[in-house]
Order: sequence, then structure tokens, then C-alpha cells
Amino acid sequence: MKNVITISREFGSGGRTIGKMVAEALGYKFYDSELINEVVKESGISREFVEKYDEYATHKNSILFSIAVNAGGDGYNGLSIANRVQIAQINVIKQLAEEGNCVIIGRGADYILRDRDDCLNVFIRADMQFKARRVLEAYGETDVKIEKRLTDKDARRRVFYRSFSMREWGALENYHLMLDSGAIGLENCAEIIAKVAKLDN
Amino acid sequence: MKNVITISREFGSGGRTIGKMVAEALGYKFYDSELINEVVKESGISREFVEKYDEYATHKNSILFSIAVNAGGDGYNGLSIANRVQIAQINVIKQLAEEGNCVIIGRGADYILRDRDDCLNVFIRADMQFKARRVLEAYGETDVKIEKRLTDKDARRRVFYRSFSMREWGALENYHLMLDSGAIGLENCAEIIAKVAKLDN
Repeated sequence: MKNVITISREFGSGGRTIGKMVAEALGYKFYDSELINEVVKESGISREFVEKYDEYATHKNSILFSIAVNAGGDGYNGLSIANRVQIAQINVIKQLAEEGNCVIIGRGADYILRDRDDCLNVFIRADMQFKARRVLEAYGETDVKIEKRLTDKDARRRVFYRSFSMREWGALENYHLMLDSGAIGLENCAEIIAKVAKLDN
Repeated sequence: MKNVITISREFGSGGRTIGKMVAEALGYKFYDSELINEVVKESGISREFVEKYDEYATHKNSILFSIAVNAGGDGYNGLSIANRVQIAQINVIKQLAEEGNCVIIGRGADYILRDRDDCLNVFIRADMQFKARRVLEAYGETDVKIEKRLTDKDARRRVFYRSFSMREWGALENYHLMLDSGAIGLENCAEIIAKVAKLDN
């Protein structure tokens, strides 16, 4: 049985919805934007900034920041607010994993928790057409073409992930399971993840 | 229900074994090295050469060959034996897919059959330790370090795949499902694949 399930997801793929279903099936806590509350509590930084810097790359390729984070990074001195939000989020994710029985969406949790052996790391993708339909249904049209909205958002997630992990978002060696939610269906994806989470090994 | 299941696999991950279990569960035909017989029949080229050039990159980045293959590529005139083997293999894979109800291991089948909508494309990976143990059990020690044997073989598969597809082997947008066989277990992987293959959508 895996204590922690991390779900990385392409924008529009339904990763959040799948994660909610998995959490329900397993009786686990669920953290997506819910993490923001925890980060506000942990850091004392105002909600406005925590929301602004959620999954936000503070620099495109900050080796220094990555070293600081990976060295423990409890000292907030001299760091920008964006960096402090990110460090607080990392600490929160580590605490939640320690408490166990949770599903965490995005935020590089697969990397942050890489030293634990009780995590199941999942990536959810889908083809452009499927994601476009879902995003248009949920958020409607804007002046920006839907394909650009999808690729821009994923590009930001990719840059955010790389900014502190030095790994590639979506590179399959980072995950135990990757599912195409368009081809497989959201409920089937959730069922497979819950089944794999329950395995002994 | 998917008619064709393609399984790409890291060396040592157990993709072949998983594929056999899936074929058995679904009552499908199974093609891994079995493809060699079919290619010998199709091409009239001797078994010796067909074996030699199985999953063998004829050139690292042959745009011309890729264009020839993707344009249909029935004319063998002026092509090397290696290229003729590869074209015959592509034709065989297309025929087998047309006959349906089969599991095909490797050989870029996911790319070759990309225009069909009745394929389930799977990638099997595992961590180095798991793969090393399996390969040592199956083939024993050699003078070459096991890590190098694993990475060299996968590098050859990567180059082979790129040589005619111009896509990246193991890039997750090419697959519907990726499973870590070390974390999930071979039998569980086979069960998940068979389950997904049976879905309506």
C-alpha cells in the first residue's frame, strides 16, 4: 500500500478530477489548491502572494536555489517572497507525506518526496483535442487560442519543475505510471491508480 | 476493445513477458522475435540478415530513408539490405495489425501504426536495479558492466526508433499507458494492460 500518491498532470487532462476520485476511493486526503491554505499557515506569508507564486518558476534554471532547497532550505533570509513561498510549499509537502494517506496534485511533489519509498508517482496526459474540449467547457473561450493556452500552461509547469529539480517534467523515468486520460477515461484512470496504490510491493 | 497492442520496453524491464501474458489473457497472437519469420517470408531476405538487422538503426538520422518509408516504401531498388529488412518489417507489422488481435513488441510499431485508432500503445520501464537483476538471471555476467549493457541496448533502441520515426523513443506523448514493471510487478502490469485493452472507448 502506498501512503502518498503524487499526480503530475497536463493542463486539461483531468488530473485533478482523477486525483479526487482516487482520494475518495482510498479514503485519503486531497491536496491541489488546498495546499495554499497549508502554505499560508506554514509561512505566515499572505494568501495573495502564496496564490501568485503557486507553481511559479522563480527563475528558469536556478542552480543556487536548487542547492539551497535540496540542502534543507529552512533559512528564509535573503530570499525573495517567491522563493520563500516555494520553500514553504516544499516543507508542507514533506509534512503531509509524513502524515501519510494523501493525494498531492502537481507542485513537483514526485521530486520533493523522491527519497521516500511509499510514494506512487503518476503522470496524466491526453491529446490536445480532449484537453481543449475540457478546458473550454470549464473556463470558456478567451482571446488566446486554446492550443496556446494549453501549451503555455504546461510550459510554465515544466519550467517550474525544472527550476528546483533539475529534472524534466514528464520524463517517464520520474513516474511509476502514466495514463492517457482521453484514451482510458477519467474513472478508469482513477480505478487503475487506486488498484496500483493498494499493491503490496 | 483494442485490436492491436504495441509494447515498447526498456531492456530488462520484462516487456516481452508482460506482452506474452497480455496475449494469453486476450487470446491474441504474440510477436516479438516471432516477427523475424514473417519478415523472412515477406522479403525473401535470408534469416541471417533479418536477424542481424532486427531493431538495428541503419543510419542515425536518415531523413531520406524516413521519407521513403513514410511515402509507402515498397520499392526496394537501390536500398541496402538493412533498409530492405526494415521496410519488410514495417510492411509485416502493418499486415499483422490489419489482421488484428495481436500484441507486438518493440520495432517502433506504435509509430508504424500511428494512423490506426485501434491500437493501445504501452511503454514498460523499470529502475536499473530491477532490470540488472533480471538480465543477469537470464543472460549471466559478461565482461561488460551490467549498467552499460542496459544503457547500450536502450540507446540502440532509441537510435533505431528515431532513425525512421523522427520521434523520441520513450517520450510519453507516444503512449497511452506507461508502467514501471519493477514497482508494479509483471503480472499486475499485464492485468492492467488487458483491462485497458478491453475498454469500450
